Amino acid sequence: MKIKVGISMRHVHLTEEDCYTLFGKDLTVKSELSQPGQYAANETVTLKNNDREMKNIRVIGPNRNYTQVELSKTDSYYFRLDPPVRDSGDLEGAEEITIIGPLGSITRKAAIIAERHIHITKEDREKYNLLNNEYQIQIDNEKGGIMNHIKIKEAPNSSLELHLDSDDANAFCLMQGDEVEIIEE
Amino acid sequence: MKIKVGISMRHVHLTEEDCYTLFGKDLTVKSELSQPGQYAANETVTLKNNDREMKNIRVIGPNRNYTQVELSKTDSYYFRLDPPVRDSGDLEGAEEITIIGPLGSITRKAAIIAERHIHITKEDREKYNLLNNEYQIQIDNEKGGIMNHIKIKEAPNSSLELHLDSDDANAFCLMQGDEVEIIEE
Repeated sequence: MKIKVGISMRHVHLTEEDCYTLFGKDLTVKSELSQPGQYAANETVTLKNNDREMKNIRVIGPNRNYTQVELSKTDSYYFRLDPPVRDSGDLEGAEEITIIGPLGSITRKAAIIAERHIHITKEDREKYNLLNNEYQIQIDNEKGGIMNHIKIKEAPNSSLELHLDSDDANAFCLMQGDEVEIIEE
Repeated sequence: MKIKVGISMRHVHLTEEDCYTLFGKDLTVKSELSQPGQYAANETVTLKNNDREMKNIRVIGPNRNYTQVELSKTDSYYFRLDPPVRDSGDLEGAEEITIIGPLGSITRKAAIIAERHIHITKEDREKYNLLNNEYQIQIDNEKGGIMNHIKIKEAPNSSLELHLDSDDANAFCLMQGDEVEIIEE
């Protein structure tokens, strides 16, 4: 079956406490994302490691119970970090990075490369028979191929979508909203 | 069989004439590359499209009979260009970009994304039975998978090596010198 691609650029999730340290207030909604309830905030941060920094990095709300920085491998070379590939919220071995807001800054072991994953509801898993823990996706174009280890992330209120980081999207010349084939491993 | 990975960052090839327009002299060797006779020049250029520019881009010598700018898809988003995926030297549909040197600048339809390819001699093709025009490669790691359309580029004086651009390398967390498996399509 085909699934729609959503591309995640580098972004940050914050705890309530870290959000207040950086901004002194709650996040405000700039634009709704495809996953219900998720939004890009008006608030942005600067990411910094030693002499390397990037400004205007989007914060994705609502706040989490962990502070996390999701980078691509390309980003990580820029920052001279070596983040592990992790499920969102799993910060085991995450790299230390500094997050700077208008009112303060925090330094956390928070930087990861997000696993490739599919957002799906329990109902859609049954409907489309996607009961395994992970799948592969197949891309047919000039830079096509197969990506392994596409983790199934089941949650209520999910919109069925494949999330890839910018490196995966760019290597395979995929755009937001493209459709790719899910295959069994 | 396994093959060694070489990663190509964005770079430029020049004609003799364009080299003289930019530098007023021949290229000089900074460091030899893995392919015999190929070298990174001491001379670098700035690439520019409208308001977007990148400085200190390496020129790869010796000069060619075409001027070509090899970008990754990630680079092309930065420059707001949409270069085609092409074999080196095939500039059909290449995007226009400006190349600036210390003595002058040129604007050429020169920007492409290089096809994934394997450098190999005729002797090695026979020795390793790599007689098809293209293969796939298989990567087994946390962001593993398969890349299609790995073109065989046979030439005398080649060093057996798989060339990928930085997007492909970063999507699959591959480093210079890693070894990956070649498989039949």
